[in-house]
Amino acid sequence: MKRCFVTGGAGFIGSHLTDRLLACGYKVRVFDNFSTGFIEFLEDAQKNPLFSLVEGDLLDKEVLFHAMKGYDFIFHIAANADVRFGLQHPEKDLNQNIVATFNILEGMRLNGIDQIAFSSTGSVYGEPKVFPTPEEVSFPIQTSLYGASKVAGESLISAYCEGFGFRGWIFRFVSVLGERYSHGHVYDFYQQLCANPNDLKVFGNGKQRKSYMYVQDCIDAMLLAINKKKEKLNIFNLGFPGYIDVDFSIRCITQQLGLNPTLHYTGGKQGWVGDNPFIFLDVSQIEKLGWKPKVTIEEGVKKTLDWLQKNLWIYEKRKSLFTASGI
Amino acid sequence: MKRCFVTGGAGFIGSHLTDRLLACGYKVRVFDNFSTGFIEFLEDAQKNPLFSLVEGDLLDKEVLFHAMKGYDFIFHIAANADVRFGLQHPEKDLNQNIVATFNILEGMRLNGIDQIAFSSTGSVYGEPKVFPTPEEVSFPIQTSLYGASKVAGESLISAYCEGFGFRGWIFRFVSVLGERYSHGHVYDFYQQLCANPNDLKVFGNGKQRKSYMYVQDCIDAMLLAINKKKEKLNIFNLGFPGYIDVDFSIRCITQQLGLNPTLHYTGGKQGWVGDNPFIFLDVSQIEKLGWKPKVTIEEGVKKTLDWLQKNLWIYEKRKSLFTASGI
Repeated sequence: MKRCFVTGGAGFIGSHLTDRLLACGYKVRVFDNFSTGFIEFLEDAQKNPLFSLVEGDLLDKEVLFHAMKGYDFIFHIAANADVRFGLQHPEKDLNQNIVATFNILEGMRLNGIDQIAFSSTGSVYGEPKVFPTPEEVSFPIQTSLYGASKVAGESLISAYCEGFGFRGWIFRFVSVLGERYSHGHVYDFYQQLCANPNDLKVFGNGKQRKSYMYVQDCIDAMLLAINKKKEKLNIFNLGFPGYIDVDFSIRCITQQLGLNPTLHYTGGKQGWVGDNPFIFLDVSQIEKLGWKPKVTIEEGVKKTLDWLQKNLWIYEKRKSLFTASGI
Repeated sequence: MKRCFVTGGAGFIGSHLTDRLLACGYKVRVFDNFSTGFIEFLEDAQKNPLFSLVEGDLLDKEVLFHAMKGYDFIFHIAANADVRFGLQHPEKDLNQNIVATFNILEGMRLNGIDQIAFSSTGSVYGEPKVFPTPEEVSFPIQTSLYGASKVAGESLISAYCEGFGFRGWIFRFVSVLGERYSHGHVYDFYQQLCANPNDLKVFGNGKQRKSYMYVQDCIDAMLLAINKKKEKLNIFNLGFPGYIDVDFSIRCITQQLGLNPTLHYTGGKQGWVGDNPFIFLDVSQIEKLGWKPKVTIEEGVKKTLDWLQKNLWIYEKRKSLFTASGI
């Protein structure tokens, strides 16, 4: 891993990963179509001579295959990471998650690149019956298009590892928090409270339990796994070894803002169709390699909100994409 | 289930299913691109006024969506069912198995159709550690592009069942035997022995253990499951509750033909990359519904060979597709 190609490198997680890889002295090329990424996240990276940026779409094979040339490790972080609105445009998950991943794999074959790390999701477990949920849980049933598209991506990567001698790292994330966080429940709640500090609409009954992790802890875990575990295929859950519920998160946010809004629950154990009311992953595999999170979920929520308060520009830039709220 | 839309209905399994559905008095429309199907398999069906045929490709959404109109149950049997040559043209599995399944699901949404049965495969279990392998085995690692593409298809169907209120039946088949069998190990071995009765090239070491099932037993099981199990998503392994090895199959075939060829093994526990050396599914879920196979694997091999001997035309028509041999 000397020359890293980072898809989605202008996004929340991808840009932090890019900064870290550059800090380690690696050459880094970011490939991003800026559909949800921001050039602002690459301000520091762009000052580094080891960095290059290609603006392109993963569905444009010609541009992609050419851009990959000369790199030896793929971090495939780009995705339509939008669980909630998947049903409104199923084709997005098909193209941006499945076909895009396939194109990456074909680009690797063509360019003789044989190592890939993939950002999957805990959503691949659907609604598991075992908590915390281990990587080797019983063959899950998909409950969201997002989860389904990530299972497809994982499966294609596995088959290429077997068939073409690639080595793969698959990371099943919980939701990630931290600086540059640009969609999700903290983002949505803060947006609502800026518009109206007295009322907060909450999808579901507030009891949904979810695990989160801080973005730097997430990147620590990815790089540790890549350095320490080198099987043909390496699958890791990544998350904080604990969870919070939506109501707790709301208390953290409103206390920090000094607000006391009336809460309006839409009701039901799910915030929306395909919403998983309980996400809590067994992270003992990554812990066994020596990883420990440095930031609690509560601290992660605080850091996220701190950053949003100082970076209101992000709402302006994304205004057209997210208007409602929820976790 | 009154008006059935059968993708791949001109193929081996699809055409038998079509005949059976017509015999039950259902209206049946076959949608097939004849890439591996044969019009000859629909000779009987074409005499039935309840039958109609649309020649089209699942990637041609306009034709597909129009053809689906007025039908209320989808049997999605069409696939690139070619495990062995998957690595030679990965795009086939992507398009014909994943994108095609996605198009079917979108066509269902558009046409208000909410029931689908899907021909998946035991290959989704990769190389399992548990035998016989149950449906709820530990989250498998994909070892073939074919298996990966079927996992993707299953996952998309599950997500649509959850998201759009569809009902789905997913059938994970072992290899199927019987009349109209037009690719697989019996087909390949017989082809070799016709060309040269004294020598037989065998991929692997002959010890690969595989389960098979007779095509009518397979269709019995599918229709039984659809009639008796009506959850949101219904997943069934389908296979004979037993297995044979390649050497046993060769003995059956050569005895029936009165030949004693010298066997030339290519060696290794796998016939090819991604070949699963042991396939044996736990079929207790379908047995619980009252299904029992009527034909043993040995009888199935015999029926297959009988049919091939009387239908040499199929080799002529497929000559360009399959030339080598293996199980």
